[in-house]
Amino acid sequence: MSSGKHLGKGSSKPVLPDDGKLRLFSMRFCPYAERAHLVLNAKKVPYHTVYINLTEKPEWLVEVSPLLKVPALQLPGEKGEPSLIESLIIAEYLDEKYPQNPLLPKDPLKRAEDKILLERFSAVTNAFMKILFQSTGLDDYWLALEIFEKELVKRGTPFFSGDRPGFVDYMIWPWLERLAVIGFILEDSYNFDAKRFPRIAKLIDLLKADDVVKSFYATPEQHIEFWRGRKSGNTNYDLLA
Amino acid sequence: MSSGKHLGKGSSKPVLPDDGKLRLFSMRFCPYAERAHLVLNAKKVPYHTVYINLTEKPEWLVEVSPLLKVPALQLPGEKGEPSLIESLIIAEYLDEKYPQNPLLPKDPLKRAEDKILLERFSAVTNAFMKILFQSTGLDDYWLALEIFEKELVKRGTPFFSGDRPGFVDYMIWPWLERLAVIGFILEDSYNFDAKRFPRIAKLIDLLKADDVVKSFYATPEQHIEFWRGRKSGNTNYDLLA
Repeated sequence: MSSGKHLGKGSSKPVLPDDGKLRLFSMRFCPYAERAHLVLNAKKVPYHTVYINLTEKPEWLVEVSPLLKVPALQLPGEKGEPSLIESLIIAEYLDEKYPQNPLLPKDPLKRAEDKILLERFSAVTNAFMKILFQSTGLDDYWLALEIFEKELVKRGTPFFSGDRPGFVDYMIWPWLERLAVIGFILEDSYNFDAKRFPRIAKLIDLLKADDVVKSFYATPEQHIEFWRGRKSGNTNYDLLA
Repeated sequence: MSSGKHLGKGSSKPVLPDDGKLRLFSMRFCPYAERAHLVLNAKKVPYHTVYINLTEKPEWLVEVSPLLKVPALQLPGEKGEPSLIESLIIAEYLDEKYPQNPLLPKDPLKRAEDKILLERFSAVTNAFMKILFQSTGLDDYWLALEIFEKELVKRGTPFFSGDRPGFVDYMIWPWLERLAVIGFILEDSYNFDAKRFPRIAKLIDLLKADDVVKSFYATPEQHIEFWRGRKSGNTNYDLLA
């Protein structure tokens, strides 16, 4: 299932080996799905990926993801082979189930503070979508990102989790990886300012060099290419296949 | 602080005793705030309540809840007296911090499934708001509630958590307590059907008799009275004070 081809309407449901491995239903350019890939890779948990064409979804998707969402993580080792949805819930499940390379802090207060921070990240993701589909909202985007710049100053560490990447870092990374897409959409008005966001700029450099991030990385050019297609109504899901 | 009076614009910040007790900033009729009260009461954690007038918020609210949201739970025992926001994050924090009367399951899969279920509850809360402010959306409300009816059938227990109320039960209760408000808004078209929702109907009866629910209960008439005021632009926050 690692050919990277996205399965769509009319496709046969893939027959996966009965090896008990987790099954991640994903889309290669979905930032939410990327969160699940990152956590699985950070944990070195072996899994099968099934990529889904989100424009023309396969009829069998409902069997593994009743709301037709990705990411969906199917657990063949559990009774009834249940599936989990919602990227943050999947990520926290994996962190609790697989203790190696722990991502969320153990302290209840620190956990809660990281979750509140991620809740506030929706201001960034909302502004991102507005830029992509309405070509407005850049100011809102920078304002929302500033919350994270300030939080890094407050925490006084290179990563949100300290000296190495953790939960917040991986959960927000997919949008940092896509910063160039904003530049593509807004062209001349795009003005990422490393002086305004020195900690975020540094975080981006550090994460780009992180093995987990590198395990599921697409270049700015690839993201732009994907969005160019999507904007023109001709989404090329298999760009990296 | 238990007089129940809501503090508004121009009010002095209440001076609370330096007793280390948690401080809950709340509004008596806010269903999200009710979640925090229920968990605190379920855990028998002593706390101070400060009720906030949400129409004319006190100037000092920003000090304890920077986004001016309720519920906000301030933790005077922790360094810097931090505040937590977001009802589900507050509830999970309390459940992790205070192990007595555990509410979420310990098993990572069951925890994730309960969280996904609560994520889906937003369809109920969204439909509720639509009914309140646009007088439409009743069909959507029943459709969303049906997910919960079916889940109770699937789980085969009176409560979502088994034989006694737990996390999901207390998190959804505030909206079940307010069912009568829908009847008030929609009048003749309101058609809660206990035959369509036998498990939910039974759950409501059971929860009404639960000591934790009783510790923060308002009657249908009181909720209707509150909403009658709110709809007419004359919100009476202190109805129960």
